[in-house]
Amino acid sequence: MTSLQQSFNVPFTYNVSFTTKLFSVDNPLFRQFLAQQTSGGTVKKMLVVVDEGVLSAHPTLPAAIRTYLAQNTAVQLVADLLVVPGGEAAKNDPSLVDLIVDAVNEFGIDRHSYIVGIGGGAVLDLVGYAAAISHRGVRHIRIPTTVLSQNDSGVGVKNGVNYRGKKNFIGTFAPPVAVFNDAHFLTTLDDRDWRSGIAEAVKVALIKDLPFFEWLETHTDALAQRDSEAMSYLIYRCADLHMQHISGGDPFEMGSARPLDFGHWAAHKLEYLTDFSIRHGEAVAIGIALDVVYSQLAGRIQEIEADRILHVLQGVGFDLFHPALAENNSEHLVRGLAEFQEHLGGELTITLLDALGKGVEVHEMDVTLIRRAVSKLEVDSLSNV
Amino acid sequence: MTSLQQSFNVPFTYNVSFTTKLFSVDNPLFRQFLAQQTSGGTVKKMLVVVDEGVLSAHPTLPAAIRTYLAQNTAVQLVADLLVVPGGEAAKNDPSLVDLIVDAVNEFGIDRHSYIVGIGGGAVLDLVGYAAAISHRGVRHIRIPTTVLSQNDSGVGVKNGVNYRGKKNFIGTFAPPVAVFNDAHFLTTLDDRDWRSGIAEAVKVALIKDLPFFEWLETHTDALAQRDSEAMSYLIYRCADLHMQHISGGDPFEMGSARPLDFGHWAAHKLEYLTDFSIRHGEAVAIGIALDVVYSQLAGRIQEIEADRILHVLQGVGFDLFHPALAENNSEHLVRGLAEFQEHLGGELTITLLDALGKGVEVHEMDVTLIRRAVSKLEVDSLSNV
Repeated sequence: MTSLQQSFNVPFTYNVSFTTKLFSVDNPLFRQFLAQQTSGGTVKKMLVVVDEGVLSAHPTLPAAIRTYLAQNTAVQLVADLLVVPGGEAAKNDPSLVDLIVDAVNEFGIDRHSYIVGIGGGAVLDLVGYAAAISHRGVRHIRIPTTVLSQNDSGVGVKNGVNYRGKKNFIGTFAPPVAVFNDAHFLTTLDDRDWRSGIAEAVKVALIKDLPFFEWLETHTDALAQRDSEAMSYLIYRCADLHMQHISGGDPFEMGSARPLDFGHWAAHKLEYLTDFSIRHGEAVAIGIALDVVYSQLAGRIQEIEADRILHVLQGVGFDLFHPALAENNSEHLVRGLAEFQEHLGGELTITLLDALGKGVEVHEMDVTLIRRAVSKLEVDSLSNV
Repeated sequence: MTSLQQSFNVPFTYNVSFTTKLFSVDNPLFRQFLAQQTSGGTVKKMLVVVDEGVLSAHPTLPAAIRTYLAQNTAVQLVADLLVVPGGEAAKNDPSLVDLIVDAVNEFGIDRHSYIVGIGGGAVLDLVGYAAAISHRGVRHIRIPTTVLSQNDSGVGVKNGVNYRGKKNFIGTFAPPVAVFNDAHFLTTLDDRDWRSGIAEAVKVALIKDLPFFEWLETHTDALAQRDSEAMSYLIYRCADLHMQHISGGDPFEMGSARPLDFGHWAAHKLEYLTDFSIRHGEAVAIGIALDVVYSQLAGRIQEIEADRILHVLQGVGFDLFHPALAENNSEHLVRGLAEFQEHLGGELTITLLDALGKGVEVHEMDVTLIRRAVSKLEVDSLSNV
């Protein structure tokens, strides 16, 4: 018996650029990116897919894009601009994948052409997935429009859609060729969407970077009052830590660990239990609170440390309890642990805290302690009324 | 304006093992592979998807697999074994992707579990795709059962299904975790399937390796007479060259070049023009013949060299002409050039020959020369009758 061994590395690089009013004619950034990418003198096509919510807040956006690209000879916008619903609806409707793939077919978008997604994290997940499976991967540009997508999901390497009620059941790892974080889109977010993304910043600070957590503590009020300078720093620093984690570790998550999912096992379950009536970031805030209190009850961090974290989350305006957590003596919630394991594969791996700025991986959770953590959050929420 | 640069390499490794009767209880190979993969003490599940044609030729295969794995504690076979049609039908029916993804859902196959595909190249393309998009990639094991899949597609990194009449329109790059080439499956192939895969060996020899082409010349009769030892060497050497090309170049094909697609632009078109009544390898043999004659007409190789190649292809039993090539003054065929460019993206890049064992990339083809090459193949085919 003989064998041949195959072994290779696939290199990926992309820039996340921070700007404002990307498609303003006097902003050279997008044009410069396209100029750098030109090769072989062929004209590349570009298909743009926009989040419905972004379009209603920025109705002149399609015209601005056309004007911006009108003089560009390296790229040719295709006739249609596709509009898809925002939020989880984008990921729950399989016909939206077909809509994008059909446009790739109809307009002859090849692997060297571009599919641009403009929207929140859910829309980018959908567009990224459709781009990844078309022709085994059409070049994908992300223009995230929410705090959450600008500091977390939009700067990473994953895409996905939901399938038969399971979040991200279908998807791939497929890095974008570029990400453009445009701060102007943040100005039209409602308060819930502004706040939502802050949860991921608290998360990454807690598991990786004490100074960033301390910065969040001193800027809680500014963030709650929609200070744009504070938000710019938060997004930059959170994106930076998120990206360092990806490049420094296991980008396509072949192992079992997933520290960036701190607070997420409960968050994913809560989104389903509430039928997505709460935003992802709102669910993550509750999930963080739960795992912080659990870490304290398990003797890993001090009560004073847990309180500092809960104070930041509450300070920016998050509710830290939802009745669905406690339903049926938390049986529904606890089932989320098994589902989280199944989705990640391998051994159950949950990140808890050993200190502020220091995550730790554990492979089991004590259901009694989970119930006690839920009770504490419930009691706290009542005393806050 | 600031930016963050992301840059990382993703490592991939897998072995292609050559064996016979993989699931015979006294063959330790598959068991050893599973033992090496065990981690964290968790039991991994295994879902097996089999080509209908393989199952009819090897009806005891499912029982053999169950017996083989019965004593294995690291892996648990799920209740169902899925059977899918073989050949292009596997890639033309979108419900087959759903069938596999639904099984992943139903049986709780996680990312560290296995999906095993047993069959010809089309079935492996289907199974590999379904595995790649489930949970963003479930570990995929390939057991190719035809010459073509054992020496070419099955040892590579691509998967795909057809969409709206376009070959491999949907798919991903997703390396398997292991490939097992079992020579026993070759014994039950019909003559057309035995022969088909030889075309890919001629192809890779012509563009990369003169000594291998010379070996093919001296073993043409043995291959035509189904000599299993000659076929074993052919598969090993072809797989080796194919794999070296992948690891030495651009594994996920981010550039425009695709030398392994020598002879394939016409082959892909011909498969559609004949409604897949000819096998992929049969179409590739004709595609190679066409580009060889074209290379000669373009003054790149000598007539004597072209004749040596055509002699090998005919010697193993390939027809080198199909009426669809000439239909409508070859208009249909020529349209295949644009479709090939669109699928690969970027500039049109076709591989021709500059010598035996030496491919060369060109960026345009002369339609008049294509028509003359078609005429020559037609005349030759008539004189052979």
